[in-house]
Amino acid sequence: MTPYEIIARKRDGHPLTPEEIRYFISEYLNGTVKDYQMAAWLMAVFFQGLDDQETFELTRTYIQSGEVIDLSDIPGLKVDKHSTGGVGDKTSIVLAPLVASCGVPVPMISGRGLGHTGGTLDKLESIPGFNTQLSVGEFKRLLAEHGVAMIGQTETIVPADKRIYALRDVTATVESIPLITASIMSKKIAEGIDALVLDVKFGSGAFMAEVEKARTLAQKLIEVGRAFGKRVHASLTNMDQPLGNKIGNWLEIEECLETFHSGGPQDFVELTVRLSARMLLLAGRVATLEEGISLSTEQLQNGAAFRKFLELTAAQGGDTTVLEHPERYPKAAHQHTITAPTEGFIQSMNTRQIGLAAVLLGAGRLRKEDPVDPVAGIHVLKKTGDTVRQGEPLMVLYTNREAAVQEAERKILNAIRIGTEPPEPLPLILDELGD
Amino acid sequence: MTPYEIIARKRDGHPLTPEEIRYFISEYLNGTVKDYQMAAWLMAVFFQGLDDQETFELTRTYIQSGEVIDLSDIPGLKVDKHSTGGVGDKTSIVLAPLVASCGVPVPMISGRGLGHTGGTLDKLESIPGFNTQLSVGEFKRLLAEHGVAMIGQTETIVPADKRIYALRDVTATVESIPLITASIMSKKIAEGIDALVLDVKFGSGAFMAEVEKARTLAQKLIEVGRAFGKRVHASLTNMDQPLGNKIGNWLEIEECLETFHSGGPQDFVELTVRLSARMLLLAGRVATLEEGISLSTEQLQNGAAFRKFLELTAAQGGDTTVLEHPERYPKAAHQHTITAPTEGFIQSMNTRQIGLAAVLLGAGRLRKEDPVDPVAGIHVLKKTGDTVRQGEPLMVLYTNREAAVQEAERKILNAIRIGTEPPEPLPLILDELGD
Repeated sequence: MTPYEIIARKRDGHPLTPEEIRYFISEYLNGTVKDYQMAAWLMAVFFQGLDDQETFELTRTYIQSGEVIDLSDIPGLKVDKHSTGGVGDKTSIVLAPLVASCGVPVPMISGRGLGHTGGTLDKLESIPGFNTQLSVGEFKRLLAEHGVAMIGQTETIVPADKRIYALRDVTATVESIPLITASIMSKKIAEGIDALVLDVKFGSGAFMAEVEKARTLAQKLIEVGRAFGKRVHASLTNMDQPLGNKIGNWLEIEECLETFHSGGPQDFVELTVRLSARMLLLAGRVATLEEGISLSTEQLQNGAAFRKFLELTAAQGGDTTVLEHPERYPKAAHQHTITAPTEGFIQSMNTRQIGLAAVLLGAGRLRKEDPVDPVAGIHVLKKTGDTVRQGEPLMVLYTNREAAVQEAERKILNAIRIGTEPPEPLPLILDELGD
Repeated sequence: MTPYEIIARKRDGHPLTPEEIRYFISEYLNGTVKDYQMAAWLMAVFFQGLDDQETFELTRTYIQSGEVIDLSDIPGLKVDKHSTGGVGDKTSIVLAPLVASCGVPVPMISGRGLGHTGGTLDKLESIPGFNTQLSVGEFKRLLAEHGVAMIGQTETIVPADKRIYALRDVTATVESIPLITASIMSKKIAEGIDALVLDVKFGSGAFMAEVEKARTLAQKLIEVGRAFGKRVHASLTNMDQPLGNKIGNWLEIEECLETFHSGGPQDFVELTVRLSARMLLLAGRVATLEEGISLSTEQLQNGAAFRKFLELTAAQGGDTTVLEHPERYPKAAHQHTITAPTEGFIQSMNTRQIGLAAVLLGAGRLRKEDPVDPVAGIHVLKKTGDTVRQGEPLMVLYTNREAAVQEAERKILNAIRIGTEPPEPLPLILDELGD
């Protein structure tokens, strides 16, 4: 068994044995297998795939490369949610305190924005003082005391994925379903959860635009999670337009506050409540989906979810006064309204391009080391299916980079199609799979 | 244009522009594109291929990475031969002096043995003092004075291929027709030739076992050579059994001496004479293939080719007394005869395995840094189609590694199939393509 042979076997479409996968990954971590050999293997996997057994073994090897958090001393089934990423996807920020307010512990480890999608950590950190870089010990203490904690990746959890993901990111080998599966599930399982709700997005703003690829990913994620004895649910949800009406770090916190107080955008609330119900169901907190929906709706409307969010923010060092007085938050230096070039129905939005326009304004990053600007972003005034008159405002851009406005506007106008007929309505939740 | 985008475009099956190929290779050589990115790209090329335009551009970029030898001050069309490698393939050692003895200059840059195949340089270096590590200046001087020079790769010729080949060798990305094409043709064109004869081998002892793959490679090589204005011929030749009867560095020199003096093995002589005729034809030294065959046969039989070989050996520092008195050459410490386990016709020989048995005995190397033993090797007494009685000698092994004899014997007995019916005769030269 040599690194060369393992690359060549995968290249030629042969399944690898568990021993071969463990050998290849562990020898990579200790330096015997070189970066260039891992890169060649990853590209071979991109083309030849991994079967269920191989994907399971890769996930297990990833998990065993680091610490597995033991949450067994915290009572109850611990449930997390993972989204494959989208534009305006601020769900975690309402969902985690909402589910925790129902008494189900939510240990949540999130990521940062990259490319056209935002990241929960960047959004939380737009709240002054909010600290997401906590140790595993602090994470467990928060979870025990408050029933919820929202932190970033630590160095000790799944270091194999950390190194291999960094390599995939520069070798065009990210878009592989088995590699994505191992990357997501290893981190979630190492987090110490009992159950997981997956929000697998499809459409123009998702990583997997094609619905059938998204479905395959959802199925793989469920299979691997179950192989580790976890209860796993996956919803296939639409990312053919931004979720909610606001894109950008603080803008999305603002929209979460609107949701806590006065309802919020219909699509965002519907998705959040339904994912919450799924989490409550997996945790055994409710007996039916309907009961989960009604409990979640109630906890959102009666202020319990918001109180849990304030408690969480305070516990993680955040300034709760801006959450209670969002009008005091700093404003972007420049504001620009994009208007409709013609009248008609909005037929479609290339949501990836809208996400990339937000990046141009400063809301996101193209490279991991780029800074993000908390106040930059886009307020989406019209969405797919809406009618517009010529000259009517479509979106408002917020930025501190005046020079970026023109290109962002061009990108957005290219991304929006206006036609004379109303488009087919988009289903928000296309399908629900798993537990 | 970023390295990532170029990898992703090739991964997704898009053709790259000449600018993209030049950028990717030149940025690799200057360190901007990393080894792991090149490895991922090479694996993507393995799966997606390169079209004619891309292969041409890759070859041109390779050539331009180093020195191109200018042989224009040496009169006549310069012709070289390249073999894709086989077991017992000692053709160059008779062919180069034979063609030179007919007055056609032969500038030959050869390689070393690796894996199951031998290398011309290792064979020449079994002649005491024979120096193949010459500078380009010495190469040109030898060619001008003697009409032939046989050297190894220099550091200055096609450094891009040198670096990328080393990477392919450890990332399982060698077996790609466009990458092989660029690697071979860039070195040959940088050598300063006007025309090239290719011996593209197929069968169990060849790198490309399948004849259709070998044909595709031959066609690609011809296309690229012609795109650079070279005359190119390719013969598709059989490597389903060893060429000639001897395998091993000095053993093959011995067989060349037998060929110079008294005819030599029929298959080896036939191939050498025919390739020589093809070279003479490309160089315009003869008007027809028949004339080339008769001139080559005559120069082999009248001693002119041998005299040129002695002249070449002396010019490159080699001891010609062992060539005139091969019986004085040292002998291997151990000699072992393998006998037929049963009677019948030899149906087939897995020639790759026979080559690997020779490596075990010390004749070749599995890794580039391994030493080779000049006296180790195999004398093949029976070949495909021959009848054998039970207990009749099949092969004689020569080695200084007594411990290797048993495994080599086992490998060889597993590689030879003996049956009751005579096999279909193997055509030595299956097809001839190009100029």
